[in-house]
Amino acid sequence: MNASRIEHDFLGERPIPADAYYGIQTLRALENFNITGIPLKAEPLFVQALAYVKKGAALANRDLGVLDATLAGYIAQACDRVATGELDNQFLTDMIQGGAGTSVNMNANEVIANVALELMGKPKGEYQYCHPNNHVNCSQSTNDAYPTAFRIALNNKLQSYRDALAELADAFAAKGEEFRNVLKMGRTQLQDAVPMSMGDEFRAFATNLREELLRIDDSRRLISEINMGATAIGTRVNAPEGYAELVTQHLRDITGLDLILAGDLIEATYDTGAYVQLSGVLKRTAVKLSKICNDLRLLSSGPRTGINEINLPPLQPGSSIMPGKVNPVIPEVVNQTAFYVIGADLTVTMAAEAGQLQLNVMEPVISFALFTSISYMTNAAHTLREKCVVGITANAKHAEELVRNSVGIVTQLNPVLGYEMSAEIAKEALKTGKSVYQIAVTERQLLSQEKWDEIFTFENLIRPHFIQ
Amino acid sequence: MNASRIEHDFLGERPIPADAYYGIQTLRALENFNITGIPLKAEPLFVQALAYVKKGAALANRDLGVLDATLAGYIAQACDRVATGELDNQFLTDMIQGGAGTSVNMNANEVIANVALELMGKPKGEYQYCHPNNHVNCSQSTNDAYPTAFRIALNNKLQSYRDALAELADAFAAKGEEFRNVLKMGRTQLQDAVPMSMGDEFRAFATNLREELLRIDDSRRLISEINMGATAIGTRVNAPEGYAELVTQHLRDITGLDLILAGDLIEATYDTGAYVQLSGVLKRTAVKLSKICNDLRLLSSGPRTGINEINLPPLQPGSSIMPGKVNPVIPEVVNQTAFYVIGADLTVTMAAEAGQLQLNVMEPVISFALFTSISYMTNAAHTLREKCVVGITANAKHAEELVRNSVGIVTQLNPVLGYEMSAEIAKEALKTGKSVYQIAVTERQLLSQEKWDEIFTFENLIRPHFIQ
Amino acid sequence: MNASRIEHDFLGERPIPADAYYGIQTLRALENFNITGIPLKAEPLFVQALAYVKKGAALANRDLGVLDATLAGYIAQACDRVATGELDNQFLTDMIQGGAGTSVNMNANEVIANVALELMGKPKGEYQYCHPNNHVNCSQSTNDAYPTAFRIALNNKLQSYRDALAELADAFAAKGEEFRNVLKMGRTQLQDAVPMSMGDEFRAFATNLREELLRIDDSRRLISEINMGATAIGTRVNAPEGYAELVTQHLRDITGLDLILAGDLIEATYDTGAYVQLSGVLKRTAVKLSKICNDLRLLSSGPRTGINEINLPPLQPGSSIMPGKVNPVIPEVVNQTAFYVIGADLTVTMAAEAGQLQLNVMEPVISFALFTSISYMTNAAHTLREKCVVGITANAKHAEELVRNSVGIVTQLNPVLGYEMSAEIAKEALKTGKSVYQIAVTERQLLSQEKWDEIFTFENLIRPHFIQ
Amino acid sequence: MNASRIEHDFLGERPIPADAYYGIQTLRALENFNITGIPLKAEPLFVQALAYVKKGAALANRDLGVLDATLAGYIAQACDRVATGELDNQFLTDMIQGGAGTSVNMNANEVIANVALELMGKPKGEYQYCHPNNHVNCSQSTNDAYPTAFRIALNNKLQSYRDALAELADAFAAKGEEFRNVLKMGRTQLQDAVPMSMGDEFRAFATNLREELLRIDDSRRLISEINMGATAIGTRVNAPEGYAELVTQHLRDITGLDLILAGDLIEATYDTGAYVQLSGVLKRTAVKLSKICNDLRLLSSGPRTGINEINLPPLQPGSSIMPGKVNPVIPEVVNQTAFYVIGADLTVTMAAEAGQLQLNVMEPVISFALFTSISYMTNAAHTLREKCVVGITANAKHAEELVRNSVGIVTQLNPVLGYEMSAEIAKEALKTGKSVYQIAVTERQLLSQEKWDEIFTFENLIRPHFIQ
Repeated sequence: MNASRIEHDFLGERPIPADAYYGIQTLRALENFNITGIPLKAEPLFVQALAYVKKGAALANRDLGVLDATLAGYIAQACDRVATGELDNQFLTDMIQGGAGTSVNMNANEVIANVALELMGKPKGEYQYCHPNNHVNCSQSTNDAYPTAFRIALNNKLQSYRDALAELADAFAAKGEEFRNVLKMGRTQLQDAVPMSMGDEFRAFATNLREELLRIDDSRRLISEINMGATAIGTRVNAPEGYAELVTQHLRDITGLDLILAGDLIEATYDTGAYVQLSGVLKRTAVKLSKICNDLRLLSSGPRTGINEINLPPLQPGSSIMPGKVNPVIPEVVNQTAFYVIGADLTVTMAAEAGQLQLNVMEPVISFALFTSISYMTNAAHTLREKCVVGITANAKHAEELVRNSVGIVTQLNPVLGYEMSAEIAKEALKTGKSVYQIAVTERQLLSQEKWDEIFTFENLIRPHFIQ
Repeated sequence: MNASRIEHDFLGERPIPADAYYGIQTLRALENFNITGIPLKAEPLFVQALAYVKKGAALANRDLGVLDATLAGYIAQACDRVATGELDNQFLTDMIQGGAGTSVNMNANEVIANVALELMGKPKGEYQYCHPNNHVNCSQSTNDAYPTAFRIALNNKLQSYRDALAELADAFAAKGEEFRNVLKMGRTQLQDAVPMSMGDEFRAFATNLREELLRIDDSRRLISEINMGATAIGTRVNAPEGYAELVTQHLRDITGLDLILAGDLIEATYDTGAYVQLSGVLKRTAVKLSKICNDLRLLSSGPRTGINEINLPPLQPGSSIMPGKVNPVIPEVVNQTAFYVIGADLTVTMAAEAGQLQLNVMEPVISFALFTSISYMTNAAHTLREKCVVGITANAKHAEELVRNSVGIVTQLNPVLGYEMSAEIAKEALKTGKSVYQIAVTERQLLSQEKWDEIFTFENLIRPHFIQ
Repeated sequence: MNASRIEHDFLGERPIPADAYYGIQTLRALENFNITGIPLKAEPLFVQALAYVKKGAALANRDLGVLDATLAGYIAQACDRVATGELDNQFLTDMIQGGAGTSVNMNANEVIANVALELMGKPKGEYQYCHPNNHVNCSQSTNDAYPTAFRIALNNKLQSYRDALAELADAFAAKGEEFRNVLKMGRTQLQDAVPMSMGDEFRAFATNLREELLRIDDSRRLISEINMGATAIGTRVNAPEGYAELVTQHLRDITGLDLILAGDLIEATYDTGAYVQLSGVLKRTAVKLSKICNDLRLLSSGPRTGINEINLPPLQPGSSIMPGKVNPVIPEVVNQTAFYVIGADLTVTMAAEAGQLQLNVMEPVISFALFTSISYMTNAAHTLREKCVVGITANAKHAEELVRNSVGIVTQLNPVLGYEMSAEIAKEALKTGKSVYQIAVTERQLLSQEKWDEIFTFENLIRPHFIQ
Repeated sequence: MNASRIEHDFLGERPIPADAYYGIQTLRALENFNITGIPLKAEPLFVQALAYVKKGAALANRDLGVLDATLAGYIAQACDRVATGELDNQFLTDMIQGGAGTSVNMNANEVIANVALELMGKPKGEYQYCHPNNHVNCSQSTNDAYPTAFRIALNNKLQSYRDALAELADAFAAKGEEFRNVLKMGRTQLQDAVPMSMGDEFRAFATNLREELLRIDDSRRLISEINMGATAIGTRVNAPEGYAELVTQHLRDITGLDLILAGDLIEATYDTGAYVQLSGVLKRTAVKLSKICNDLRLLSSGPRTGINEINLPPLQPGSSIMPGKVNPVIPEVVNQTAFYVIGADLTVTMAAEAGQLQLNVMEPVISFALFTSISYMTNAAHTLREKCVVGITANAKHAEELVRNSVGIVTQLNPVLGYEMSAEIAKEALKTGKSVYQIAVTERQLLSQEKWDEIFTFENLIRPHFIQ
């Protein structure tokens, strides 16, 4: 038996499953939007943030006397329950919807209203006691409640992403220490350049990623600007005097985040600049991770016909046909994650550009793109660290042999012999297959054995000092 | 109690849940790849296509005597079971993986081997009787089996997408007929231009989308080129003479698709051009759908302070704060879907560019992007048709009034009065608020009432004929 | 002395340099649009195509009696002069403009009118004898004349691009022949895979690019659909009966191109689908060229610490500090060109999506992006062929040594020893540094010397046959 | 007569035009790179910055005793001449080149060497007295000199861009003041929402753009980090002790910019993160400008069949066929510029991702994309301000009428009547065409005339206060 209750809105009546905490507007959203099949509950931090916003609003409304204190208390208590995640299965709206988030906002309003009714001992749907719009949504519009919740959720989600990235950077830094005395050839444009320490190469990966942490911090500052109290378009229509400032304070207390009220609420209500900025930051990190993974794959190429300076931990047989083949599967999956994130940044860009007049109606796809990108990037950072970086080993002997046999070391002779003579030696070495030493010292006697020895110490190759 | 069996590969041994049809390599993939959380089984057509490929290979191997006929029969039978979808829950590899699809291919090899063992009355894991690599994967590599299955799955998935798009185009065409005699102002650059029939406007949407059907057909032709028999890199190493041609024929029979064997197997094994082309076609349709939805939103803007020439069916209350507001939520969700697809096209582009040497290792993210885009586009086409287009109504009276009051109708006087005189009339009309008629006929008497009447019939406004 | 004449339009009067063939509307465009600094004349094929369009229109108007035959003759003659390129310096409008091409169309109308006046022996600006709008633009709108000229120009420009690409493919094919008997290691995922012929690798590049020629042909078919006679929005307002068909025929004769009239002129007037498709084709080729150049750079990496299978012709010293270094500068510049073109495709995508209602006002930036991309790609194709591909040489001995020392050849033992035993050999080889031969034949005696010799002939390595 | 001198490098000899200040390596670059046809001199700030870098290096080399003081003086003097721009026509390398900027660096080295020789009274090409590599390029590599010059040039170029954007924001702010008391309908999702002040709408544009100024400042900080002294790959090979710090100080003095030396020179030598960030900032502003221009076009749509709340200054006749039509050509050209910049951001993204190992060889196309985007954006900002924003006028009467006739004002009744009753009124108004007043006050008497008057004052519509 499928018991149901009847709910109505200004478009008509519909039966709602009796045990559903959501109501008629959520039902309509479920019917109208079936694009991704990924429901709102896939982002529990977003559900939680919606509960925070509704609680903050209820408290501010209570303080300002526009909501009865008892009712506000029930709403706040209902929000607390929702914030624990226990009602997540009531948040079913598809991640991409029309309506600029109204369905998400109403999903929250309806669930919270019905939980509050339950707390009051009333049956679900008896909205005269606690109404989704008049009470739960009091002094709010989707256009301030939705982006505020989105920004709180992003802020919290970014915390774990930042941690994952910091740990990955640390793992690279540790390898930088470990490989400090591994001499290897540096390469520019895929051509042999000059020698270097493998430790420096890995420390540079850490440096490269640590810069991203600062950019994430920038983003978090930008998305900490909220527009609560703006209501429909930023004119504060229907919000009581002082409400915007008060609800912002309540939200600071509830979330522990450094939220600030936007200075220009008209602008803040339609602007998606902070999302574009954040998406750009994610993209930049994706670009860097992809570059790093390309490097790891190059450096571990071979084992016999490639560079083979490092070994990635073998994780799975690499081929269904080629026995013994092991592939750099973790860097590969990170590359692909990066391509996804770069694509998602374009989605955000186009959605941001499509905003019109007093609202950007495309915010749901922005939230879908950003939540997904942050999740994938977090997963990729963990995977890369755990499954790959911590287990990398160096083929130090082989790496040093490559240096010793190279022509690239001729650069070290520049200050002594000048660019043109050095180039002549290099040219002969490449043509004849002879070593730089043989040509410069043995045959042409352009510098003494002592000078050679002074220049080509291990120490001077791996961390060169200026010798003229 | 969690019973398990022990399996091994060349990296070592691992316990596998006793009831799992998948084996050790799938297990490793589950441990290694956790990015999207979306498993392979989310694309049942892909699982089915893998079964087709394995069956085709078994039959060809049997015909050529490299696989025992009885064993080949068991494998083929196992493939049939997998193709029905009943084993879908064994295909758990994350949609984005490293390894160029090896994990997906091995997931299929393992499941099919164990189903075949079951059919033979042997316990799971007794691979000496039916081995994932030696038997199920016989004469194959991931590098031919995976893309072939991918292409078969795409081909089938495109069929339902094409149908959805064709139905959407038909719905627009039907509205084109319905609105045939609705006179409205045409607009260029958002400025009043010249009158037209609303029917022509809607028929043009149909024309616009029907062109896409031809492009989808182009794509299907390109992705019907397969590389079975190429094995690892296209040299056909380990595939018996004649195998490539034979397995292609078997696959044509099994799938009913017009599959053809690539002429250059080296190239075909790494090339992702067909995916780039297909992604471009999806993107083009997304661009067009987005433009159409922008138009629908513009034309239905208002109701009182916008254009308001058409009404979209009201589907849900449009605002949590503004009573009575109804928004164009369906076009909005389609716009957002389009932005997603355009972003996914960039993912495909980058993944295609990242291919190196004899293989493109980024094919899994390409498959993820394409499968997702096709699904979302199919859903969007259905949604737009059902929830919006079929219910659109015209505000014919209002639309005609806008035309009659416009200055844009002055263009019709060009052949009679010349461009400069017409421009002068227009300028005066805009400045004074007078009508074109008043200036041209009443005040300046530049043309007779008869001429005016001849030119400005309803018929001549909506479908102009040349009158000098 | 700066002599000038006075011209006027409905916004007022302006002095025009006395010797200028362009008029007041071009002047306004010069004042209004200063974004790129790149004038229309930078695309002489576009200027030429505008002249073709205006001539075709004049002839059709003459045939239909809406333009005096003598005047039409002067206009046609003026168009012939413009088509030669001698008036190119009068086409000065910035490549990116607002107005959907109106400034470009008026630039052509004004220049042609003044050239016609000159031919008639009249002073410039005496438009009562030959008027830019009433006569040169007769039966036309920017909205049909501009895209038609654009499409004719694209068509012609694509011819030389196609030729350049075909020659590049031929150069790769020639190398494919030349390297037919160079044995080398094939690589997947940057890991040693199985042996192959270097000739096959280069022939595959040719195959890869030759597929692009077919896609270019597709594009040319799509952009051969024109909308002449549509006038302002496709209703044919102000165009005489039969004009659209007649002018299309004249344009076929004038241009020698297979132009066809669009079936739905309303749709054709706003649709930019053909440009999106063409841009996608350019992008796909860019993706392929970038992949090929990545491969060339990988294969020539070294000389001592990379793969070093091939040598690119040395073109310039590669470093201001590292003597003797030579870099793969030509592939590098082609990679960068590809990135430009991929970016330009996004510009086209966004511009196409931004079309509204009866016209896409963003067509100028589409034309800028497409013209630039085709030019750059043509230059890149020539550069890559002349400066790089034709001079590539193989390090055949080194390439074969890499194969002989590899573990990847163990795949050839699969059909004889099975996947698991082969994997065991591979594992031991990699661990101990021993050769596959030593383990399989000498130590473990898994196969006889004869069998080994049969399998590992040069011929069977480079073009494997199936041996069980 | 074409007099010439002979120059050589390690690839051979070539005649150079006798009067050319550039040398053999520039000549080779001219032969090798012909993609865009746009020469280096098109960015005079870049040429200037190269001169700054070379001067800074000469002074540091002098201070450290690795360059003779007299010679260093001549080089510095030559740099001063180049920095004035008088040698710009010697900087001819194509903006997109292979070689990671080596050709640009050598172009500068050669020109400066020859200018120095001239100052020394020596003939051009007598490099034993002043050598492009040994002296001008002393203690440098392309890999530090090129990006440092690039960053200095960007920094200076951003200054004028920032100014242009700030002026544009100011122009919007001025309109915000001017339109302070223009009442208009706010719109969300293109549907009538609630009333607002047109002044607030324009001030929001200013707010929106002023946020960009802060982001530009962020970018300038990031690109102020330079890697001078890193030489080839960041190991400081061939640079004397203390050189990096000293040359950075000299460059701070020479440029007046707050340049700082990167902490990790290995990372700084390959990292392109700062360019990705800057490109993202440009993209974000482009997105915002495009949104603003979309709004301006919407708000000025009509004049008779659109919204028509504002008038953009008429700049040119809008149509070759439709008399009197005036189009929003300036917003249109800015939209197109934005699409270009968004495309260029993708170019930067791909180029950044393509960096490998110790260097990103794709930096030239990054510089091309960024220089072009900044130029175009600067031009667009000036154009939008001068040709459009400052001349915008409001149709205040019409805008207020739209509000008074709207149903959207019903939202103001929410606090008094509740959401559901307000929705019922709205629904009836839309169905019957009646006004909200008629239904709420006259017919249903839901509130008194006094309450209505209190709520619907002009002041309360344009800047609502909370009334319960």
